Amino acid sequence: MIEDHLARMGLELPAPLEAPPNVRLPYESVRVHEKLAYISGHGPFDGNRQLFRGSVGAELSVDEGYDAARATALSMLASLKHELGDLDEVQAWIKVLGFVKCANGFNVTPAAINGFSDLILALWGQAGRHARSAIGAAELPMGMPVEVEAIVTLA
Amino acid sequence: MIEDHLARMGLELPAPLEAPPNVRLPYESVRVHEKLAYISGHGPFDGNRQLFRGSVGAELSVDEGYDAARATALSMLASLKHELGDLDEVQAWIKVLGFVKCANGFNVTPAAINGFSDLILALWGQAGRHARSAIGAAELPMGMPVEVEAIVTLA
Amino acid sequence: MIEDHLARMGLELPAPLEAPPNVRLPYESVRVHEKLAYISGHGPFDGNRQLFRGSVGAELSVDEGYDAARATALSMLASLKHELGDLDEVQAWIKVLGFVKCANGFNVTPAAINGFSDLILALWGQAGRHARSAIGAAELPMGMPVEVEAIVTLA
Repeated sequence: MIEDHLARMGLELPAPLEAPPNVRLPYESVRVHEKLAYISGHGPFDGNRQLFRGSVGAELSVDEGYDAARATALSMLASLKHELGDLDEVQAWIKVLGFVKCANGFNVTPAAINGFSDLILALWGQAGRHARSAIGAAELPMGMPVEVEAIVTLA
Repeated sequence: MIEDHLARMGLELPAPLEAPPNVRLPYESVRVHEKLAYISGHGPFDGNRQLFRGSVGAELSVDEGYDAARATALSMLASLKHELGDLDEVQAWIKVLGFVKCANGFNVTPAAINGFSDLILALWGQAGRHARSAIGAAELPMGMPVEVEAIVTLA
Repeated sequence: MIEDHLARMGLELPAPLEAPPNVRLPYESVRVHEKLAYISGHGPFDGNRQLFRGSVGAELSVDEGYDAARATALSMLASLKHELGDLDEVQAWIKVLGFVKCANGFNVTPAAINGFSDLILALWGQAGRHARSAIGAAELPMGMPVEVEAIVTLA
């Protein structure tokens, strides 16, 4: 059902994250413990191709930051499908921690991370409601403008 | 009992956080899963009124950073009361993640976040003991000097 | 068995973290709830002696950042032994959140935090596999180049 919903929104899942050349990522995209899945920090990637780069408020506008956060959600969903087999295995969203690489003095981090939250809420409805923080990071891996990690419950 | 203790300390709960004008916060202040409550990042707010602004080590002294972290704890308690009905529903504190917007070269982040931890320990005693990190953030939403998220257990 | 493995690698546990002079840390190194242990942010310390200081990409090379992250893992293991009595009580690693104090424009945070992940994987094997984020922090307490917090399951 979640993938049908994505299709109706005109969206499709990117390829699951692969490490870019010369980057070693010795960790799991998703780590399941009992009925909780802890999801690693994701960014706006399609496979090993980085879709956005730079600081929000400088190279990227707030709208582009929002789009980068939505692309980050899609990359996370691709990891969840890859690990769980089906996005319908995700029963509910619990906690989101988002980081935004900000230009100096730019502090509208929630407006960017809303691109993540809005997509999750559109797809899961009430079950998508989550606690959240949106923090300005000095740097993010590979110059990504957004990185988000999350905790979800499984069916 | 917790609210009595607050009153004896001469403190009172602020109004629960409301989004300031033109800010959209599409997430929950508190998300409960089984007997754990995941609490969103809070800052020093009374309703939609921001009580502190700026960087610790520049516009704010360390003591003001400490006070901002205490005000952040009070705002979080207001959210917990709003969501749970009674602060006595919070059985124990587990984990605190605090961010401090620091002036360049200022790294005494624990001294600021202590304003949060000290209040929780004063109110909950042994049950208030928590694991913690105190990180320097490049930026925080709306120029807040402190943002704290937490995990608590419920009765 | 974990300590035997450490010895075979030629490594030994440092002294458990103590607050340096004039620093007050009113929190627990490890907070256990049911069969999960939430571990506070740790850095590269041996007792109250700080082993690395400065920004990765400026005062410290990437390799030194890697070494600082490995030293951080050892300090965390010392805390776990102190709290749990035996490192074999740690059944599996679930989630790691790493922060790196970066020089301006330095964003190779995964290469540093790999020093943490590689040691955990070497010691625990499959049970050491964890979800992870690696974030660039503006500042870290006491000028530490690396700070890592984690969640593990207990036997």
